[in-house]
Amino acid sequence: MSVTHPTGLPATSREWHLVARPQGWPTLDDFALREVGVAEPGPGQILVQNTHMSVDPYMRGRMNDVKSYTPPFELNKPMDGGAVGVVAAVGPDTPGYRPGDHVLHGLGWREYAVVEGKQATAIDPDIAPLSAYLGVLGMTGLTAYSGLLRVASFQEGDTVFVSGAAGAVGSQVGQIARLKGASRVIGSAGSDEKVQLLLEEYGFHAAFNYKKGPVAEQLKEAAPDGIDVYFDNVGGDHLEAAIGSLNVHGRIAVCGMIAVYNATEPSPAPHNLPLIIGKRLRMEGMLVRDHFDLRGPFVDEVGGWLRDGSLRYRETVVPGIENAVDAFLGLLRGENIGKMIVGLAD
Amino acid sequence: MSVTHPTGLPATSREWHLVARPQGWPTLDDFALREVGVAEPGPGQILVQNTHMSVDPYMRGRMNDVKSYTPPFELNKPMDGGAVGVVAAVGPDTPGYRPGDHVLHGLGWREYAVVEGKQATAIDPDIAPLSAYLGVLGMTGLTAYSGLLRVASFQEGDTVFVSGAAGAVGSQVGQIARLKGASRVIGSAGSDEKVQLLLEEYGFHAAFNYKKGPVAEQLKEAAPDGIDVYFDNVGGDHLEAAIGSLNVHGRIAVCGMIAVYNATEPSPAPHNLPLIIGKRLRMEGMLVRDHFDLRGPFVDEVGGWLRDGSLRYRETVVPGIENAVDAFLGLLRGENIGKMIVGLAD
Repeated sequence: MSVTHPTGLPATSREWHLVARPQGWPTLDDFALREVGVAEPGPGQILVQNTHMSVDPYMRGRMNDVKSYTPPFELNKPMDGGAVGVVAAVGPDTPGYRPGDHVLHGLGWREYAVVEGKQATAIDPDIAPLSAYLGVLGMTGLTAYSGLLRVASFQEGDTVFVSGAAGAVGSQVGQIARLKGASRVIGSAGSDEKVQLLLEEYGFHAAFNYKKGPVAEQLKEAAPDGIDVYFDNVGGDHLEAAIGSLNVHGRIAVCGMIAVYNATEPSPAPHNLPLIIGKRLRMEGMLVRDHFDLRGPFVDEVGGWLRDGSLRYRETVVPGIENAVDAFLGLLRGENIGKMIVGLAD
Repeated sequence: MSVTHPTGLPATSREWHLVARPQGWPTLDDFALREVGVAEPGPGQILVQNTHMSVDPYMRGRMNDVKSYTPPFELNKPMDGGAVGVVAAVGPDTPGYRPGDHVLHGLGWREYAVVEGKQATAIDPDIAPLSAYLGVLGMTGLTAYSGLLRVASFQEGDTVFVSGAAGAVGSQVGQIARLKGASRVIGSAGSDEKVQLLLEEYGFHAAFNYKKGPVAEQLKEAAPDGIDVYFDNVGGDHLEAAIGSLNVHGRIAVCGMIAVYNATEPSPAPHNLPLIIGKRLRMEGMLVRDHFDLRGPFVDEVGGWLRDGSLRYRETVVPGIENAVDAFLGLLRGENIGKMIVGLAD
C-alpha cells in the first residue's frame, strides 16, 4: 500500500498531531494521525524507524498553551517524546552510526523520525529488550532512582510511601526502596489487581486500593508508625494524607500530580500544609533532567538487579501507532500496569 | 500592697493561665491573670524576676489541644515562652549564678519564675539591651538567620521575597539578605506605615501593602524577573503568589503561616502547588530549635552588623504583665512593628 522510496524506504509515514488544546480530559478529537513524506537525513542526521514510543503523564501538560518546563506541543505539528528504533539511513557527516543500529531519542509519536545524531543515544538490545530503554532502564527508571535517593534523601530504615505504585515510576521506587533497606514500603494503586501485584510481585510490605476508602485512613492503617518518605505521583488527597502521616524531618519528592492534571478547577489540597512547619517537612519538585549525572550508577545498580532478578518490571505495550492516543488516555485513566508503551514496528 | 517575703522577695506574683481553648481567634476570656506564691529556688534552681517576656505567633498553636512540635499549654497552669530577667535568688548547689545576674530562659508569662540553672543562659546587658536577647540577638534573630541561609539556601545574587516583613523575623531576614548580597529584596506588610519602614529603615528594594491589592499582582510588579527565595511567615495567598513567582530551583523556607493559625476551616491554598514540579521548587518547614548549632556564627555576624549600624531593629514593648494577652492578640492582628515584647519590670 505504501509507495517505496528510491532508497528502499517508504515514501510516507504517519505521525500524530495535536489539533486542538484539550479543556480538562483530552478526547480523540483533539488529535489527528497524519500521513507525511519520509525525509532523507541531512548532514549530521539519522533517519530512525521507531519501534516503540513512550506515552507519559507529563505530556498532558504540554497540550496546554502555557509556559512550562517543556514547551507546549504546537498545534498541527507532530508531537514528540521518548522513542527507540532502528537506524534506517545515515546522513552525510554523521559519524558513529550505521543502518541497523539501535538508538534512543526524543522524537516519538511518529513512525519515522529524522534525528540529529548528537541527540540520539546508542542502546544495546542484548542487555535488555528495546522497550526497557523507555522504562526500567530509561527515563522512568532514572526518575525513580534519583527521586528516591537524591530528592527524597532516602536513608536505610526509612518507611516509604509511594502513590501510583503500580505505575512505571512507582513500582520501581518501591522496589529500590526495599532493595536499599527500607524498613517498610507502602504503595497505593487504583485497583485490587494492582494492589495484588504490589504485594506479590514487587515485594511491597503493604498496599491499598485508594478507591476503596479515604487515603488518610488507609495510609494510617498501613503505616501506624508514620512514614519518612513520600514519593508523590498523584497529588491531591494522597499528598494531604502523606503530610498527615509524615514523621518529623520527613521528605516528599513530588514527581507528578496526575490527580490534578485534568482538573479545570484549581487543585484544592493539601489542606494541612501548615503541618510542614512543626514537622520540618521538606517537599521538593523534580524533573529527571536535573539528574542525568546519576545515569552511570543508576544503570549499573538497576542493571544488576535486573540480571539477578531482584527487581521486576512490567510493561503495557499497545500495538500500532493508530492506537497511541488511546494508549495515552488509558495511561491518564490508570489502565496500564507498569510502563505504558506503544509498539510501532518489530 | 504585696507582702514581703522573709528573704526580701514579694510573697506573691502574677502569672497568666490559659483557662479555655480558643476556637478561632482567642479572646481575653480564654485567659486569666492569677496571683500565686513565690517559691524559693530548690537545689540547682534559680529564682528569676522577669524583666521582659516574648509573645510569638507559635504560641497560638500551643493553645490548641493537639499533638504538635511543642506540647499544648495546659489549662489552668501558667503558660510559658521566652523571657529575660534578673536572678533574685539562687538555690543550693546551683553553681555559676549570683543574684543580680541577667539570664535568658523559657518561663515567661509570669513575674517570677523558678528556673533550672542548666536551662538558663547568661546574657550581657552591656552588649545589647536585655530585650534584644528576645529578638534580634535571640530566637527570632536566629530564626531569620538559619531560615534564610540554611533552610532556603540563600545565594549571593538571589532575589528574596519576605512576607510579614515588618515583623521581628521578617525585617531581619530582609536585612541579612541585603547584607549578604541579594540582588533584590522585596517585603510585604499590612500597612503603609510598615511599607515605609521597610523601604526607609531596613533597606528593602521594594515593598507593598498586601491589603491594597492581590498579593500575586503586587509581587509580580515588585519582582518582574521572579524571585529565587521566599521566606514565608504568612501562608495563604502569599504562599500561592510566591509559588507563582518563584524561578526554577526556587526555595521556600516556611517559618510561619500566621494567616491560617486562627482559621476554623481547613487552610485552602495554595491552588498552584503542581508548579513545584516543573520549577523544581523546594519548600521546607523550619523550627529554630534545629539550628542552635548556628548560634555562634549568628551572634558574631549579627552582633557585628548591630555594632556598625548596618542592621537595624525595632521593638514594640507593651508595659505591664496585665497587658500581655492584649500584646499577644495585637501580634496576631499585626499591630506590632518589629519584635513584640511585654515589659514586666525595669
